[in-house]
Amino acid sequence: MALPVSPLAVPLPDLPEIPGVRLGAAAAGIRYKGRNDVVMAEFAAGTTVAGVFTRNKCPGAPVDWDRAALASGRARALVVNAGNANVFTGKAGAEAARLTAVAASVLVGGPVKQVFLASTGVIGEQLPHERLTDALPALHEALSPHGWDAAARGIMTTDTFPKGATRVAKIGGAEVRISGIAKGSGMIAPDMATMLCFVFTDAKLPAPLLQDALSRSVEASFNATTVDSDTSTSDTVLLFATGQAEHAKIPRVGGRILRDFQIKLAEVLHDLALQVVRDGEGAQKLIRIDVIGAVSGKSAKRVAMAIANSPLVKTAIAGEDANWGRIVMAVGKAGEPADRDKLGVAIGGVWMAREGSVVEGYDEAPVVAHMKGHEIEITVDLGLGRGKATVWTCDLTHGYIDINGSYRS
Amino acid sequence: MALPVSPLAVPLPDLPEIPGVRLGAAAAGIRYKGRNDVVMAEFAAGTTVAGVFTRNKCPGAPVDWDRAALASGRARALVVNAGNANVFTGKAGAEAARLTAVAASVLVGGPVKQVFLASTGVIGEQLPHERLTDALPALHEALSPHGWDAAARGIMTTDTFPKGATRVAKIGGAEVRISGIAKGSGMIAPDMATMLCFVFTDAKLPAPLLQDALSRSVEASFNATTVDSDTSTSDTVLLFATGQAEHAKIPRVGGRILRDFQIKLAEVLHDLALQVVRDGEGAQKLIRIDVIGAVSGKSAKRVAMAIANSPLVKTAIAGEDANWGRIVMAVGKAGEPADRDKLGVAIGGVWMAREGSVVEGYDEAPVVAHMKGHEIEITVDLGLGRGKATVWTCDLTHGYIDINGSYRS
Repeated sequence: MALPVSPLAVPLPDLPEIPGVRLGAAAAGIRYKGRNDVVMAEFAAGTTVAGVFTRNKCPGAPVDWDRAALASGRARALVVNAGNANVFTGKAGAEAARLTAVAASVLVGGPVKQVFLASTGVIGEQLPHERLTDALPALHEALSPHGWDAAARGIMTTDTFPKGATRVAKIGGAEVRISGIAKGSGMIAPDMATMLCFVFTDAKLPAPLLQDALSRSVEASFNATTVDSDTSTSDTVLLFATGQAEHAKIPRVGGRILRDFQIKLAEVLHDLALQVVRDGEGAQKLIRIDVIGAVSGKSAKRVAMAIANSPLVKTAIAGEDANWGRIVMAVGKAGEPADRDKLGVAIGGVWMAREGSVVEGYDEAPVVAHMKGHEIEITVDLGLGRGKATVWTCDLTHGYIDINGSYRS
Repeated sequence: MALPVSPLAVPLPDLPEIPGVRLGAAAAGIRYKGRNDVVMAEFAAGTTVAGVFTRNKCPGAPVDWDRAALASGRARALVVNAGNANVFTGKAGAEAARLTAVAASVLVGGPVKQVFLASTGVIGEQLPHERLTDALPALHEALSPHGWDAAARGIMTTDTFPKGATRVAKIGGAEVRISGIAKGSGMIAPDMATMLCFVFTDAKLPAPLLQDALSRSVEASFNATTVDSDTSTSDTVLLFATGQAEHAKIPRVGGRILRDFQIKLAEVLHDLALQVVRDGEGAQKLIRIDVIGAVSGKSAKRVAMAIANSPLVKTAIAGEDANWGRIVMAVGKAGEPADRDKLGVAIGGVWMAREGSVVEGYDEAPVVAHMKGHEIEITVDLGLGRGKATVWTCDLTHGYIDINGSYRS
């Protein structure tokens, strides 16, 4: 069932070739009919890899596999399927992951532990891995440096638009490319909002530095977003560096030479994370929440997340109601240091409440206009310290109930 | 705007006289027209009181007032209004609370610090306290030992049915009465789901013992329920003991003689808490979640609450979808000890998943039938220890979005 494209959708940018990466998509018929549902990427020998995975205690078999494979810091292939998440599938699920990795490793001529996997879709059903492995040889044959569009679309489940981002970073005067694709927070029946993100660069970075750069960027991008507070069992971000770019050798400890790379990587991840929120189930509005004046950055983030995950705040925004009282409630329930009588709340830049009370006579017209837009900005000043944080979410609408209240089949 | 009565509603029981309590309701026109919106109760001299309040860091002025008043352990009056929560109203709000207490104290001839207050409704607007205090003299004049029905209805905001419960407990062979009324999780515009509960008994208990009994009961009743994870700024449970019953003197340390009282008090609170969930905004199904096999009771409760607050679990139940995969996800995101490969999930008593995998060939028919009913039972076995907990919630439906997405005015 095709859903209308999110009103917050952005176009897929043109993703140029990255030396050392060939990719493509094929139809394996795992769950969906008449569309590609398996994506493969092959990497040049010497490609390093970093990964960040769900903190959910019940991860899927591909997450288990990748965590183990990450030990070597090397990657030769990535295989992703849509339609079945291979989660809560026991020993048979682990075996399905292993068999898929073996098939891919044979095709690329590399060690099985240098194959990375991701699956997304319904959980608790066995992955029909023969369909996947049957599709791989022809898919491998057709891999191309230009397969970005197909790959971005092939990993979608109930996403309403494909997601991609690209930047050029400088490492010691030389240019490197960083491109990523993502899926997430889809719509309609299958299951939980699962987020996958794959980022590729031709930079030449040892795996520990790559991991460090990735971990820093994830905190301020994907980990600063929420659609519905439910943490998927499959969330995966993988960063592959082919090392094909010609730039100065990176010192073992990294340092200043990686500064621009870190900035651009953060931009790519941030761009993709916001695209996922823009495709949040039923989303009609993108919401940015800035918390300032907290006792620490960590405290600010917890308060911001309490606001972002409050169903009452999210439904009010869906109803275009600048209901700052609900924001006060969410601040108060966060369990972080807060003093009601120092609290201020602004929407669209207009302070509606200050020091524990409504701002008498504030100008409501710009607030009403702001609430009618697609991008909503909330600022909360706790008035206690210098800690601050920003998170993004979307509103909670009838669309969310439609999508998640319909039966799986 | 009248909403249809919740399909989970239960009738208001006949609440008999409690010696030492006279109560009633009147129309003060605070927000609602053509209905009672202020409730008053007067207590015999010597009445003791216990209270439990919201943990929200931005409590309303009446909560501040009651916390201070509780120090004396004595109560002579209770004044409750519906339609305006007197929250985030600064110094003027605190003054409105004090003036209301003064007016009531004059009428009952007792100290102002023995008047208890509660307000529920819209937040961030000044309470028109003159309307409240103007209505009090005539209301006080008309107080009666039989005013229960009027009181239960007078505290409603957008509740769809009045809530009450009553039990008889034995203290050393003598009978005492415990009755309570509650409001909460109403519907339509005003603001956040606010819960108020007032319990009355003719038992003669010193305030510390009363507080101890109340605190124990709240943990397993109101604190074991959730509608939408949003903690109100006004939640208040007050227990008044008039001491008019003739029973053996209670030892200063309480003990065995209070056992039946404790049991019956817990039953009253549990009954009222479930009535609040039954009137949860948009609720169509009452959901009981039992978590067993956790490493501790605390851990079990956190896991149960993660399930109860998961929008994906709640929308699946609204859609009558026995989507145990989402329950697994919620267990995993709770942050508590859990081992995917030991996990079991049952719905309506049928184990659908065991030891990290689906139970092949389980009988789906009784599960499908169970999901169509109004009361849903979920059991999760973590398989780790002996910790267990039970919580209650309701489903997440279009009704919730309708109610909370509409503009306040």
